[in-house]
Amino acid sequence: MVPAKTVTLLTDFGGADYFVGAMKGVLLSSDPEINIVDLTHEVPRHDITSAAFILLACYSDFPAGTIHLAIVDPGVGSKRRPIAIVLDSYAFIGPDNGVFSFVLDRHPDAQIVHLTKEGYFKANPSATFHGRDIFAPVAAALARGVPIGQLGEPISDPIRLEMRAECQRSADGCWNAVILHIDHFGNCVTSIPRETWASVVPVDLRIEINGQTIRKLRSYYADAADAHGELFAIWGSAGFLEISAFDDSAAQRLQVKPGERVRFTWRA
Amino acid sequence: MVPAKTVTLLTDFGGADYFVGAMKGVLLSSDPEINIVDLTHEVPRHDITSAAFILLACYSDFPAGTIHLAIVDPGVGSKRRPIAIVLDSYAFIGPDNGVFSFVLDRHPDAQIVHLTKEGYFKANPSATFHGRDIFAPVAAALARGVPIGQLGEPISDPIRLEMRAECQRSADGCWNAVILHIDHFGNCVTSIPRETWASVVPVDLRIEINGQTIRKLRSYYADAADAHGELFAIWGSAGFLEISAFDDSAAQRLQVKPGERVRFTWRA
Amino acid sequence: MVPAKTVTLLTDFGGADYFVGAMKGVLLSSDPEINIVDLTHEVPRHDITSAAFILLACYSDFPAGTIHLAIVDPGVGSKRRPIAIVLDSYAFIGPDNGVFSFVLDRHPDAQIVHLTKEGYFKANPSATFHGRDIFAPVAAALARGVPIGQLGEPISDPIRLEMRAECQRSADGCWNAVILHIDHFGNCVTSIPRETWASVVPVDLRIEINGQTIRKLRSYYADAADAHGELFAIWGSAGFLEISAFDDSAAQRLQVKPGERVRFTWRA
Repeated sequence: MVPAKTVTLLTDFGGADYFVGAMKGVLLSSDPEINIVDLTHEVPRHDITSAAFILLACYSDFPAGTIHLAIVDPGVGSKRRPIAIVLDSYAFIGPDNGVFSFVLDRHPDAQIVHLTKEGYFKANPSATFHGRDIFAPVAAALARGVPIGQLGEPISDPIRLEMRAECQRSADGCWNAVILHIDHFGNCVTSIPRETWASVVPVDLRIEINGQTIRKLRSYYADAADAHGELFAIWGSAGFLEISAFDDSAAQRLQVKPGERVRFTWRA
Repeated sequence: MVPAKTVTLLTDFGGADYFVGAMKGVLLSSDPEINIVDLTHEVPRHDITSAAFILLACYSDFPAGTIHLAIVDPGVGSKRRPIAIVLDSYAFIGPDNGVFSFVLDRHPDAQIVHLTKEGYFKANPSATFHGRDIFAPVAAALARGVPIGQLGEPISDPIRLEMRAECQRSADGCWNAVILHIDHFGNCVTSIPRETWASVVPVDLRIEINGQTIRKLRSYYADAADAHGELFAIWGSAGFLEISAFDDSAAQRLQVKPGERVRFTWRA
Repeated sequence: MVPAKTVTLLTDFGGADYFVGAMKGVLLSSDPEINIVDLTHEVPRHDITSAAFILLACYSDFPAGTIHLAIVDPGVGSKRRPIAIVLDSYAFIGPDNGVFSFVLDRHPDAQIVHLTKEGYFKANPSATFHGRDIFAPVAAALARGVPIGQLGEPISDPIRLEMRAECQRSADGCWNAVILHIDHFGNCVTSIPRETWASVVPVDLRIEINGQTIRKLRSYYADAADAHGELFAIWGSAGFLEISAFDDSAAQRLQVKPGERVRFTWRA
C-alpha cells in the first residue's frame, strides 16, 4: 500500500462535543496536508455492529491508500487491544472489538497488528479518550509512511462479530443469510451480495424471515407505490439485497433486529 | 468557467448513514485534491423547496468555479432527468425536480444539460443512490475539466417551482411577493430582495400577509426586545426582507407556509 | 505567529441551515487553500460558557498557526465589540462576550484587538450575520498574513466570564475550584487541572460539592462498574478532574450546574 493522505473518521461521539475536533487537531498537527473526511459521528452509542456495517458499505468508495479510523469503543481504558488492519488498498485503525468484522469477512487474509509501540502514541495518553491519544497519532504515523510492522505485533485472532457479511449454501440447496443492518426507514439489509446474483432473473423467489415469506423483487422504490405496506426485496445501494415496504418499516412488519436469520431460494 | 476544485454537497441524507461518506469517497477517488464542503445534509426529507432556498442563500459566497451538488431526489430511479447547470462562475448538478429553480430565477439564461452520457456515470449504477453513482462522478468529471457540452444534451425546459425568488409590480402599484422559506425560529423569508430596496428609507410601509399588516421595519433583532411578540420586518442575511417576531414564531402568528402571498407597498 | 491555513469553526448555528456553508464559502473565496475544520455547530443556542469550554478543551490540539473562529453571538448587531486574540501559536476571532474567557485564563498576556478596520469586513455587512460578513473575512485576512495590529485597536478589557478555568488555594489550605462544564452524560468537569496533580497519589481525598463529599479517585470508567451510581472523581480527557457516576448523571445526583463551587483537599 502506498501511504496516502485521506483519513476518514467513524465514531459514536456525536457532533456536539469537542471530541471530533480534538482528533482532527491531532491529525493535522502531525501533517496539515491530511485530508480528513467524516463518515459519521452519529453511530448509536456503543453500537459496534452498526459501525461495522457503515464501514463495509463505503470503505471501498475511497481512493486507494485511505486510512479508516473507526472509534466505537465501549471498552476504552480496559484491556481490549488497539489494532490496525492493512489490505492492499486500505488501512483500518481502531479498537479490537468487532468493528472491523465485516471488512474481515471480505478479506480474511488481511494483515492485522496489535498496536503496542507506545512511542507512536501521545505521551501520557488519557484512560478515556484513545481516539485522540492513541488511534489518531497512529493513523498519522501510517499516513506519513511508517510501515504497519513497526506499529506493533502481528495477530491472527481479532474479535469477530457472530454475524457474517456473507451467505452460505446449506445441504438442502437453500441459502442462509442474516439481516446485517436496519436503516432509519426500517429497510432490512441482508447479507445476500448483489455481485453474486444481480444479473440473475429469479424464478420462484422465496425469502423467509421470521415466519414470513417475501416473493417479490422490485427494481425501484417508486415501483411499489401502488402496493402500500407490501414487503418486497430490492438490490440496495450498499451492495446487498434489502427487504423494504413502501412508506412503511419492513423491520417493524417483520419484527426483526440485526442478526435475524434469512433463508432464501430461487431458480435462476 | 474555469474548472476548480471546490465541490459542495447539499442533501436530505442526514448525517447518520454511509451515504454522505460514499459520495465523498467517489469524489476523492476521482481526484484527491477536490475540496469537499458540506452545505447541509439536514434538509427535511424530500423538501425540494427548502433545498432550493439554501442553495440560493449561499451559492454565490463560494469561489468562482465551485460545483454545487444538490441531491434531494424523491424520484431517484424513475424517469426524472439528471441535469447540470452552468453559470459564468458556478455549476450545479442534481435531479431535474425544481431544486435549482431559485438559482434559475436569477440566471434565466443559464446553460442546462440533460446528463445522458453514461460513460461518465459509475458502471452499473444502482437504482436507489444516484448521488453516489451518477451525480458525484459527473461532478468529478466537471471538476477535472470535461466541458458541460460533453456530458449530455442541452435542454431549455427544466422543472421549475411555482414559487419565484423575485417580486413583481402589479397594475395598482403594489408589489407582489411570496414567502420563500421559514427558518427554524419561524422567521418568514420573503422574495423581496434587499439589493433593490435596502438603501430606501420607507414611508408608510404596509406588508400584507394572510390578512395581517406589518408596518414596522427594524434594524436588529435586539431592537425589538421591548416589544415581545410584535411582528416586524427586517433585512435578513440571505438578502431578502424577513418577517420576524422577537422571541416568537412569526410563521405561527401569521399562520403561513412557504408559498404564501405577500403584498407590499411603501413610499420611498 | 506564522500564519497558517487551518481555520476552525465553533458556532451555535446548527447544521440544518445555510449559515455554516456561507461562512465556508467566504473563507474559500478569500483563499481556496484554507483548511476549514468544524469543531461543532451544536453549541446550545447562545450558550457562551459551553462554547468557551469546548474551545479550551481542544484549541491546543491543532497545529501552530491555527485560527479559531468562535461565533456564539447573541448580541450580533448591537454594540458588543468584534475582537481577535493572538497567542504565540493560535489566534481566536469572534464577539467580545466571554467566549474566549477560559483561553484567556491560561494566557493572561494575550494580545487582544478590537476589530475596527472595516476595510477587512465584507462591504455592507448585514446586522444579523457577522460570522459571514465580519468574522470570516477577518479570519481570511489573518490567514493570508495581515498582522493583527492592522485589524484594529489594542484593548485590555475583554469581557470575562465570572467563572475561571483554574483553582486557587485559600488560607485554610483548601483548594477552591468550580464546575466548568457538564457534558451530555452528566459528568461534571471541574477547574482542577490534571497537569498540576495527576502525578500525585492522593491520600485522604475530599471533594465537596453542594453538601456532598466525594472521596474516591478512579482510573477508568469501567473500574466503577461494580458500584452503580456511586460518585467518583476521574482525570478527564479535557485535562481536568471530572466527577462521574457509572451509568448515572453525576450532575443530577449532585444537583449542580456550571459555576457551582468545588472545595477540595488531599494529602500528597
